[in-house]
Amino acid sequence: MTTWCRFKTGNKTSYGVVEGDQMIAVEGTPFGEHKRTAQSYPLASVKLDIPVRPETFYCVGINYKDHILKMAKMRGVEPSFPPKPDIGYRTNNALIAHDEDIVKPADAGDAFQYEGELVAVFGKRCRNVSKEEALDYVLGWTIGNDVSERNWQKIDRTLWRAKNTDTFKPMGPWIVTGLNLDDMTTVIRVNGRETDRFKTNNMIFDAPTYISEVSKYCTIEPGDVMWMGTDGVPENIKPGDTVEIEITGIGVLRNKVVQGK
Amino acid sequence: MTTWCRFKTGNKTSYGVVEGDQMIAVEGTPFGEHKRTAQSYPLASVKLDIPVRPETFYCVGINYKDHILKMAKMRGVEPSFPPKPDIGYRTNNALIAHDEDIVKPADAGDAFQYEGELVAVFGKRCRNVSKEEALDYVLGWTIGNDVSERNWQKIDRTLWRAKNTDTFKPMGPWIVTGLNLDDMTTVIRVNGRETDRFKTNNMIFDAPTYISEVSKYCTIEPGDVMWMGTDGVPENIKPGDTVEIEITGIGVLRNKVVQGK
Repeated sequence: MTTWCRFKTGNKTSYGVVEGDQMIAVEGTPFGEHKRTAQSYPLASVKLDIPVRPETFYCVGINYKDHILKMAKMRGVEPSFPPKPDIGYRTNNALIAHDEDIVKPADAGDAFQYEGELVAVFGKRCRNVSKEEALDYVLGWTIGNDVSERNWQKIDRTLWRAKNTDTFKPMGPWIVTGLNLDDMTTVIRVNGRETDRFKTNNMIFDAPTYISEVSKYCTIEPGDVMWMGTDGVPENIKPGDTVEIEITGIGVLRNKVVQGK
Repeated sequence: MTTWCRFKTGNKTSYGVVEGDQMIAVEGTPFGEHKRTAQSYPLASVKLDIPVRPETFYCVGINYKDHILKMAKMRGVEPSFPPKPDIGYRTNNALIAHDEDIVKPADAGDAFQYEGELVAVFGKRCRNVSKEEALDYVLGWTIGNDVSERNWQKIDRTLWRAKNTDTFKPMGPWIVTGLNLDDMTTVIRVNGRETDRFKTNNMIFDAPTYISEVSKYCTIEPGDVMWMGTDGVPENIKPGDTVEIEITGIGVLRNKVVQGK
């Protein structure tokens, strides 16, 4: 098990390995050749960056039964379960790191919500792989917060600004390798109060199914990410709130909401 | 007016400037510092690469009145005009260069079609810009072919494989700066026979409108691209066919269709 982080010093971004309360700087990246350097820092002093900037940013829209049932009830519509693993996308402009601020735009409404998600980070190029071998192409796992403006989600023809406005995609804090998905629980807290708790792997289509299906048509590159969806019914968040998403074995992704101009 | 191309020599990809039948290699990129080298090649000998690999790949889904009217008639549905400029996305895995092959998957149906599009390539970081200043952030223009599998487009929950399967996004041949959009005509040919011809700038929402609107929520980065939609009713293409998309002042993007396994 290795914990890969990406950190900033001045204008430079580098990879490092977290061990206890220390971070050892690494030359190279986890996606290619790399070696540990002699330089280490106290983890508490490190400014974390997003753990990777993907070539393609895959995102599973709806992938938990409870989320679909409860969201449909709330919207007064019939629940609709996805019949097959059709993948969606998000965009890099929206990515922010652990501890960076989610900026709520001035024209965003009250239905401004978090979604806590498991994220697969790919380590190897992957095309036409079986379900059985799919996880061999995953370097490790991180956490994503699929921040959503529900009114824009409803009224726009696409998900562009509802899901991809700048700062709407916190990802981090780091990538952890060698985890067992069945051991994971996702816990979401707003200002320290638990708002959701679910078995992370209780998905309609699991990660191997999605990876195998996508790879029949699309080449997945090292550094690409796949966000796996959320469960439960997210609550509204507002400027001043802090959202924490914790997944067993990975850690906590924490971001504060601030008011945009 | 400058014609920027990106070309391959061995495993290396570099930028160059096209002048007449020669290509002069450039150190650096058009998005940052650069200078011409003393090295030039006959253009005919150059293996072109896609002119840029974007951080975010914006794509306007439907943006021409005739396309909407005729496609709706063909599908037996009411035409639906977009009430506002909501942007969509495509993905990097699908990009191929001029003269590279579009691979039609073995399980794709007959309704396999081209869409000829004008593409804006951004040269500067762009956030919250007015319509009037929007084009100042565009480095230049290239051509895109938004290859689409219409049955998948209809039956899937998202556009993922209908629009983003590997090789479904030819882009090129190069980027041309300093063009006047009102002077452009888009002409599409299949096996040399003209199948579509339309005024390139006859859009429902023009490029400045889209750029200004997107930039209210999303930071557009240098190297990002925005595909502007197509007009007319595309025809089906099949393995063996060659599609050419010509736009005044830019050139011709040509790709052959081959059968996938």
